[in-house]
Amino acid sequence: MDKLTLIPLGGFGEFGKNCTVLKYGDDLLVIDVGLQFPDDDMPGVDLVIPDFTYLVQHRAQIQGIVFTHGHEDHIGALPYLLAQIPAKLYATPLTRGLIEGKLREDRLMSSAELHTILPGQEITLGAFKVTAYHVNHSIPDSIGLAIRTPLGLVVHTGDFKIDHTPIDGKTIDLGALAKLSMEGVLLLLSDSTNAESIGYTMSESRIIDSLQQVFSHAQGRIIIATFASLISRIQLVIQIAAQFGRKVAIAGRSMEESISIAEKLGYISFPAGLRMPITAINALPPNEVCILATGSQGEPTAALGRMAKGHFRNVTINEGDTVVYSSKAIPGNETAIYRTIDELFRLGADVIYGEQAGVHVSGHAAQEELKLLLNLLRPLYFVPMHGAHRMLYRHAQLAYSIGYSREDVFVLENGHTLECTAAGARLGEVIAVNTVYVDGSLVGDVGNTVLRDRMTLSQDGFVIAKVTVDGVLGRIAQVPELISQGFIWEPTSAELLHQAQEAIAGIVSSCNGEFDADTLAQRVKGSLERLFYNETKRRPVVIPMIIQS
Amino acid sequence: MDKLTLIPLGGFGEFGKNCTVLKYGDDLLVIDVGLQFPDDDMPGVDLVIPDFTYLVQHRAQIQGIVFTHGHEDHIGALPYLLAQIPAKLYATPLTRGLIEGKLREDRLMSSAELHTILPGQEITLGAFKVTAYHVNHSIPDSIGLAIRTPLGLVVHTGDFKIDHTPIDGKTIDLGALAKLSMEGVLLLLSDSTNAESIGYTMSESRIIDSLQQVFSHAQGRIIIATFASLISRIQLVIQIAAQFGRKVAIAGRSMEESISIAEKLGYISFPAGLRMPITAINALPPNEVCILATGSQGEPTAALGRMAKGHFRNVTINEGDTVVYSSKAIPGNETAIYRTIDELFRLGADVIYGEQAGVHVSGHAAQEELKLLLNLLRPLYFVPMHGAHRMLYRHAQLAYSIGYSREDVFVLENGHTLECTAAGARLGEVIAVNTVYVDGSLVGDVGNTVLRDRMTLSQDGFVIAKVTVDGVLGRIAQVPELISQGFIWEPTSAELLHQAQEAIAGIVSSCNGEFDADTLAQRVKGSLERLFYNETKRRPVVIPMIIQS
Repeated sequence: MDKLTLIPLGGFGEFGKNCTVLKYGDDLLVIDVGLQFPDDDMPGVDLVIPDFTYLVQHRAQIQGIVFTHGHEDHIGALPYLLAQIPAKLYATPLTRGLIEGKLREDRLMSSAELHTILPGQEITLGAFKVTAYHVNHSIPDSIGLAIRTPLGLVVHTGDFKIDHTPIDGKTIDLGALAKLSMEGVLLLLSDSTNAESIGYTMSESRIIDSLQQVFSHAQGRIIIATFASLISRIQLVIQIAAQFGRKVAIAGRSMEESISIAEKLGYISFPAGLRMPITAINALPPNEVCILATGSQGEPTAALGRMAKGHFRNVTINEGDTVVYSSKAIPGNETAIYRTIDELFRLGADVIYGEQAGVHVSGHAAQEELKLLLNLLRPLYFVPMHGAHRMLYRHAQLAYSIGYSREDVFVLENGHTLECTAAGARLGEVIAVNTVYVDGSLVGDVGNTVLRDRMTLSQDGFVIAKVTVDGVLGRIAQVPELISQGFIWEPTSAELLHQAQEAIAGIVSSCNGEFDADTLAQRVKGSLERLFYNETKRRPVVIPMIIQS
Repeated sequence: MDKLTLIPLGGFGEFGKNCTVLKYGDDLLVIDVGLQFPDDDMPGVDLVIPDFTYLVQHRAQIQGIVFTHGHEDHIGALPYLLAQIPAKLYATPLTRGLIEGKLREDRLMSSAELHTILPGQEITLGAFKVTAYHVNHSIPDSIGLAIRTPLGLVVHTGDFKIDHTPIDGKTIDLGALAKLSMEGVLLLLSDSTNAESIGYTMSESRIIDSLQQVFSHAQGRIIIATFASLISRIQLVIQIAAQFGRKVAIAGRSMEESISIAEKLGYISFPAGLRMPITAINALPPNEVCILATGSQGEPTAALGRMAKGHFRNVTINEGDTVVYSSKAIPGNETAIYRTIDELFRLGADVIYGEQAGVHVSGHAAQEELKLLLNLLRPLYFVPMHGAHRMLYRHAQLAYSIGYSREDVFVLENGHTLECTAAGARLGEVIAVNTVYVDGSLVGDVGNTVLRDRMTLSQDGFVIAKVTVDGVLGRIAQVPELISQGFIWEPTSAELLHQAQEAIAGIVSSCNGEFDADTLAQRVKGSLERLFYNETKRRPVVIPMIIQS
């Protein structure tokens, strides 16, 4: 029977690593290959990427990968996929530029066959006919996808909001959406990032007023921290700086790179003479300086983080400087961000941050926009995507509130497939999808066991008990040695370590010369764990090392 | 010369562990002895308390400790102080009740001399004449303090907001504040918790509408998660449950305890027959049940956390239940809270949370209230207290905005004293104030070194290299043994461990039999650290153990 299967590989029940697959017959269409930044219960992990097992297994069936826009959570895991299989990639010009930058750095260009797509042009990828339509988001050249299949039309929104006054003048193509609606939509996959926010998301233009106010009041330098990928925001700051007669310098490698790509492709432009190298900025009077900096998430090694610590070579924060956080806190980064803000205040800067300051707007649709899209398209079936579980559920509730029945809305998790046939839509098989951690240069070797060990070690550290036993006489040959880290401050713990040594000696002598190393090790471990817990209420990892001399 | 010194011991540049000391002549007055919950860069730490060194050294000069209200960040560290020195304590009835509960549990009643104070009554504590005035806050019996000293009047707000329609009907005593203003205020110390929030904080009554709406829509059970100490909120829920014909049960030990104390003292009352034991709740129809639960901060072992995991004995979350978070996320707890919310949605509950839901209001004054207080009292000098650095700076900015000059506003840090004399106010000496961590049953032994070690261990784990050398021949006597945890998943790492063994063998043989154990250990450590970093880009803690056989 004719069957269209939706295979959610990433972004369903989590923030980031967005990756959606559609299957019709033997043909697979992949949409986005994003990465995720680690949570605070993933210590030491650098990145999280989707599980590519399914894609690698079905490599021959993949007709192409289409990208909706150039943010890391949509393109960032591509190098890890291309390291395993080659692929045909389809993207709008800016997205393509950002992908190329990434692939060149990782020497993966030969694994990719790159194609430029433009809104309105139809491309055929096996059984799928894909037409992009323009959407508003916090990076230019963002698209949603109309995907025609033999079973019907699927609409994938990508990340979007409805902005009637975007900085680049290009509003979301509501006309195209209206036409799709007339055609009849089988299945809608829609962005849930802001499904918790009531009302409408403000236009990017809304920031102009707030930033102009900051520029008109500031006496010293203005430092604006934002995401390197917020191309529209960066263009806006350049325009306002020009208005107020301030030169613009860039601090931070990732910002320099994304500006350079966007400038080459015509998505950012500097009025003549406005841009200054960061090294030349100290020669200017403070009220003629505007610095665009990375580090809005409290990253200690990014430009703003180093400025706050006095470690940034070309910029020292002075009394009278104004620092603007034109960004939002990604959940989990709050502590680090606030620590940086505290440092900046201490150095005498005025710091402008937080939602109420009006210097940031979201790039994602809020509840009224999401309902508008649902009502405009009136799909037969609806799957909320891109968001933590609670956001998907909130998005589903929005659908119920405009009359959808629970049978036609599917809150999916990664790996839980949805099958559409002429008879309707229903949950399909569940394919195994793991969380793949990238730590250092290794991909996927760190699993939940290693992470659990790290969490345990971070709580109370460890104690190594080196027990040297006379193999012949079966008694302690040397005073047991205890090495600990992260458990207790050594100078205060002499008494406790002495108790531990006595406990070990007691165990060895109670063996009366009859023991094997494994049994002794187990007894030492158990005894020390009890002792440490009773005396300190802590549970360090205890590692016995039995040495027979 | 006549001198009044303000000694900030806790709560200046941080959330929690509030503790303020005033000194005149030889007399010391202590206000509040609170604790702080640990940040996410304090792994394994249970609590943080103020550094009591100064108080213990000057124990004979302490005239008394006055408490502004019964929250943990104002009374929670008292047992740790009383374990070192006895003291006279002054508190309003509910605060006293909560303190007594705490001291009885820790068997410290004999170290305390407890006195009840009431708003309007003056008590003399050495050079200080202290009169409490009533304030609104999220726990009843909260007070601010008017402290008369030979040099002038000091006003300490405690935690406060201005609520014209509080649940218990007792509004903040603005009349008392107006009288203080007429008397002339030398120094104001004011709550900065909400100095970042524009406008006014909503009245506790504002929640009535939102909760009534929840109760009128809910078909199944209603579970309301809130702080055990939010006595007014708990009373409000009881009243609304009664209105809607639902019985109330309590889930969570801390909530039971604080309700029991508040009930005994008349601050909470249940209509007859309304309260049900949690064990009897399953016998009732779902739409007659309301459960007050702990766990609003995502604590996995609190009642709501266990319900979400299906581990709470008497309550299983079912489709149709409504869970209300009548609380805010304490910074740092977001990840844990959201994880619980996701679980609850998955179990089929409707979850109501977040600022926009209107089911929580803050207990602290926002910007307009803070300015009102400053304008009402017009102190000569102003010190913002109770808040992270950024909040103190924002509070200072509010004072500047209503005409204060920078010379009369002091943003202090813990230990940075302020001296007032007839000549004016100026920064005084800096006394050493450390952060004291409570971890398990030990107080203060965990310092920054141990915490740094724990953070390092949590990133990449450790590797122990056991190297047994033939003491006579100076060569490897056994194949080196490597024990690791949190570094790498063992089954995939055979090759790497083999490389490490070879590196060790190479080092030993290059010694040509001439080495001491310390030098060898250093070389093994350095070599393995390089190897692991080159091969994995990770930096585990390497512990070499050299054994001579």
